[in-house]
Amino acid sequence: MPELRKDPVTGRWVIIATDRARRPSDFSREPVPPPSSRFCPFDYGNEQKTPPEIMAYRHDGNANGPGWSVRVVPNKFPVLGIEGDLNRQGDGMFDRMNGIGAHEVIIETPDHDKTFAVMSELEIERVLSAFRERILDLKRDVRLRYILVFKNQGAAAGATLEHPHSQLIALPVVPDFVREEIEGARRHFDAKERCVFCDIIRQELADERRVVQENADIVALAPYAPRLPFETWLLPRRHGARFEEAPRYEYESLARLLKSTLMRIDRALESPPYNLIIHSAPFTDAGTELYHWHVEILPKLARTAGFEWGTGFYINPTSPEEGTRVLRAVKI
Amino acid sequence: MPELRKDPVTGRWVIIATDRARRPSDFSREPVPPPSSRFCPFDYGNEQKTPPEIMAYRHDGNANGPGWSVRVVPNKFPVLGIEGDLNRQGDGMFDRMNGIGAHEVIIETPDHDKTFAVMSELEIERVLSAFRERILDLKRDVRLRYILVFKNQGAAAGATLEHPHSQLIALPVVPDFVREEIEGARRHFDAKERCVFCDIIRQELADERRVVQENADIVALAPYAPRLPFETWLLPRRHGARFEEAPRYEYESLARLLKSTLMRIDRALESPPYNLIIHSAPFTDAGTELYHWHVEILPKLARTAGFEWGTGFYINPTSPEEGTRVLRAVKI
Repeated sequence: MPELRKDPVTGRWVIIATDRARRPSDFSREPVPPPSSRFCPFDYGNEQKTPPEIMAYRHDGNANGPGWSVRVVPNKFPVLGIEGDLNRQGDGMFDRMNGIGAHEVIIETPDHDKTFAVMSELEIERVLSAFRERILDLKRDVRLRYILVFKNQGAAAGATLEHPHSQLIALPVVPDFVREEIEGARRHFDAKERCVFCDIIRQELADERRVVQENADIVALAPYAPRLPFETWLLPRRHGARFEEAPRYEYESLARLLKSTLMRIDRALESPPYNLIIHSAPFTDAGTELYHWHVEILPKLARTAGFEWGTGFYINPTSPEEGTRVLRAVKI
Repeated sequence: MPELRKDPVTGRWVIIATDRARRPSDFSREPVPPPSSRFCPFDYGNEQKTPPEIMAYRHDGNANGPGWSVRVVPNKFPVLGIEGDLNRQGDGMFDRMNGIGAHEVIIETPDHDKTFAVMSELEIERVLSAFRERILDLKRDVRLRYILVFKNQGAAAGATLEHPHSQLIALPVVPDFVREEIEGARRHFDAKERCVFCDIIRQELADERRVVQENADIVALAPYAPRLPFETWLLPRRHGARFEEAPRYEYESLARLLKSTLMRIDRALESPPYNLIIHSAPFTDAGTELYHWHVEILPKLARTAGFEWGTGFYINPTSPEEGTRVLRAVKI
């Protein structure tokens, strides 16, 4: 019997249609192909082919030369421009403003063919630190309201370059999905005076059926009402609204759990394309006590993701309990 | 300069990043391949290969044999089951219910290789009538709250069979995207005592820059803040909350405009995959004066759609004004 489940934060219903998983096409995969040997602007020695770097962690060399371990550059094809005024305007009943913001690329390693599953924990932690530094710097811009940090792994997940990288988009508005989560978290807080994510973590740790892995600071779990098969969230145990305000030990623990979770996903699902996105509270004070930063990993298995487009509604052929069993059983 | 635009119904901001359209990969397409000659359960003579038909329009023959023009059958792999109780339950803080509902397939024509762009207006109108009949029948089931009617054209848009068909999913809950639209429409109505969609139609017809085509009853337009390139909405001029309550002449006009809009899209974009979805008010009385049924067409051009996944935020490289110019210029 299929099941309808409600996400406790957003109130979104999804169908967990486990009967459909019998169709082999539901699990067809588009594995990320092995790296090609084409010219790559993110490799050592090609630093002049990107816009000048904004920051870098380096053990050697000078700016815009080799010797770095993480390098942040402006996106060569930015979706937003950093110069100018917002110029908020009406157009009859419509609202617009200039596309002011930042669009940066975090080159995670000089190694063309590494992924988070292969990098060392220290290397991943350096990437997380770079995220933090860039967020703290951009937050000083009063025109901005939110910073999206995300990673598209594999062309089918939207990556246009295969060299390991993440992106950061600083926005003068709060994205819809964040607004929905905050509104949902506020409904819970108003009713109970508790953070809804803290409540989820407490229940999931007691229940165990959806806990993929945990360490001292971070819990990796399949959400109760996942939109996609093998959707996995990583949440800090300690309440905190913003990623960039987390203490250093949480980054260490997050790096460890990110690596092992992505190793599990790679081995169970043949290195699928995926999106990784950091959910964090907007810059304003709103949400500090009721929102809880976390990381969402959305594997993009062929077909299954397509169902959402057609329906405007998520239909997931893999229950989170089944997905958790599969990921837990992986030897890492 | 990129632009941020706010959808006047949902309040969702999108980036119209026209500068990015210069990247050729932004416009790469996955055209729907010409039909194959494999066995198809929706062809004449194969009626026994589907579950028994729920209804059919026929000019000849008997149920579950040839002679039909439109045929509705249960989906062989339903995401919801029609038998049983909802059995709403809590699981600690979580909410679930049984996946009760209907999942039907509307086989639009016996011709394996026709599309809405190729069918006659009368043939399309018959499909719309079949939608209406099935909705009116299913609405009598008190367990149900909403019926999603949608069409996935092309494998990249989620279609698993190439024979022209639509799907219907009857749900015991209101999908998130409908709830958001109704909440947005209610905010507008509370402030102005007018339907937000009626206001949009009035402004767009006066402005003209985003009107793709119109006839006596229906207007095809690019929304002010489209999520995807060439996103197109078809709205009735006359206020009405529910598709299934529309008068016959609106179906005639909708069939005409659907055909010519999809001809434009096919010719301008090399027959791209697309999703088509009917937006209509839920069964409850709520929303009757403030919601306005319409049809949304979402062409699925390669790459561009991928951006949303990574960001949880829509970045559209084609402005609706530019998209409208392209579609209007098509000779049909």
